[in-house]
Amino acid sequence: MAVLHHHSFCPHSRFVRLAMGEIGLEPLTEERKPWVREHEFLLLNPSGTTPVLQENEIAIPGASVIAEYLDETRGLGVSGRRLLPTDPAGRVEVRRLLDWFNVKFFEEVTAHLVNEKIYKRFSREAPDPAAIRAARTNMRYHLRYIGYLASTRDWLAGDHLTYADLAAAAHLSCADYLSDVPWEEDEMAKDWYARVKSRPAFRTLLADRVPGMTPPRHYADLDF
Amino acid sequence: MAVLHHHSFCPHSRFVRLAMGEIGLEPLTEERKPWVREHEFLLLNPSGTTPVLQENEIAIPGASVIAEYLDETRGLGVSGRRLLPTDPAGRVEVRRLLDWFNVKFFEEVTAHLVNEKIYKRFSREAPDPAAIRAARTNMRYHLRYIGYLASTRDWLAGDHLTYADLAAAAHLSCADYLSDVPWEEDEMAKDWYARVKSRPAFRTLLADRVPGMTPPRHYADLDF
Repeated sequence: MAVLHHHSFCPHSRFVRLAMGEIGLEPLTEERKPWVREHEFLLLNPSGTTPVLQENEIAIPGASVIAEYLDETRGLGVSGRRLLPTDPAGRVEVRRLLDWFNVKFFEEVTAHLVNEKIYKRFSREAPDPAAIRAARTNMRYHLRYIGYLASTRDWLAGDHLTYADLAAAAHLSCADYLSDVPWEEDEMAKDWYARVKSRPAFRTLLADRVPGMTPPRHYADLDF
Repeated sequence: MAVLHHHSFCPHSRFVRLAMGEIGLEPLTEERKPWVREHEFLLLNPSGTTPVLQENEIAIPGASVIAEYLDETRGLGVSGRRLLPTDPAGRVEVRRLLDWFNVKFFEEVTAHLVNEKIYKRFSREAPDPAAIRAARTNMRYHLRYIGYLASTRDWLAGDHLTYADLAAAAHLSCADYLSDVPWEEDEMAKDWYARVKSRPAFRTLLADRVPGMTPPRHYADLDF
């Protein structure tokens, strides 16, 4: 049985939950605290970051490594289509966008928001307002880029839903919980997100809560 | 004919040059200036970063996307072995370390060193001494981790040379040019690096120079 070590508001963990949900896998889950360096967890993943998928005595750390592993071991099982396409150009485009969201968008936006507003709440540190401001500024151009992609294609990487949509939506969902997505600035991005958010794999994510922190009303509303 | 858009001291570009050299590919190269946002280059890669490999009318951006592309299109050609192994656990370990060096080591060490000391030299900005200090501090634990891996395995990811060795060596080679690797602190890491550095694919990297900036004497010395 696969075990996913994750945190409910770690965007990379959310990406893996969405990918596994789309594939039809339901791993056991174990909540981890990325702001604490636990010896036992460092043995699974020396970088100490979530997520880690444990299966068949292999510890698979990190969103992109897990995405490749799932494609290689389960890719053909996704009801006739794949979250990573089979043609070289299609694979390049999905992986380019996976990097864009899981590395660049994360560094420029969601790492700041989640660290400052959620993880520091748990570790009782004071959030850094400058980091939050920078994240909000960067969010605006990322949202425009998502809107641009959504206006030229059915889904972010092309004709089908892929890992690219799941990664973008996973990161946005964390920021949206914190009221940090200016949806009114991009109608195309908002419409695309509503489509991804309405998929069954999204349900358990939208039910998660940070104790004492209420999301905006539209957060879990599928017709927002 | 493949074209590699790169910068001589961009560690991700160096990784791709090493990988292509090991596979036996000699792309045309085009030197780019990552510190300038060129419109024509942004069309190839919207993130504006090096490297980008152009082949068969596909623009393949970024070290990890290029590594997967080369494995899928040329992986079997590497004289009987692969830079990415074929078994699931082996692939996980190489990709974990690729992420470790290309994302974590880069963010914590080489991004600072290369930006502050090389790119800012070209763009005539003043380097930030705090960023350089942080990189030097972080370098020490990364070098210990490389030494630990090298002391328990023949190569960083296992029995064979893989992408993991090439990524680690690519980043270290940039730092080494700048005299920022405290080799005396880890004999195992030093021995492993000497082995990677002596491979033919490394030759052209060691010949590159930043005008007016001389590397330390051991930089291009294969028996250092």
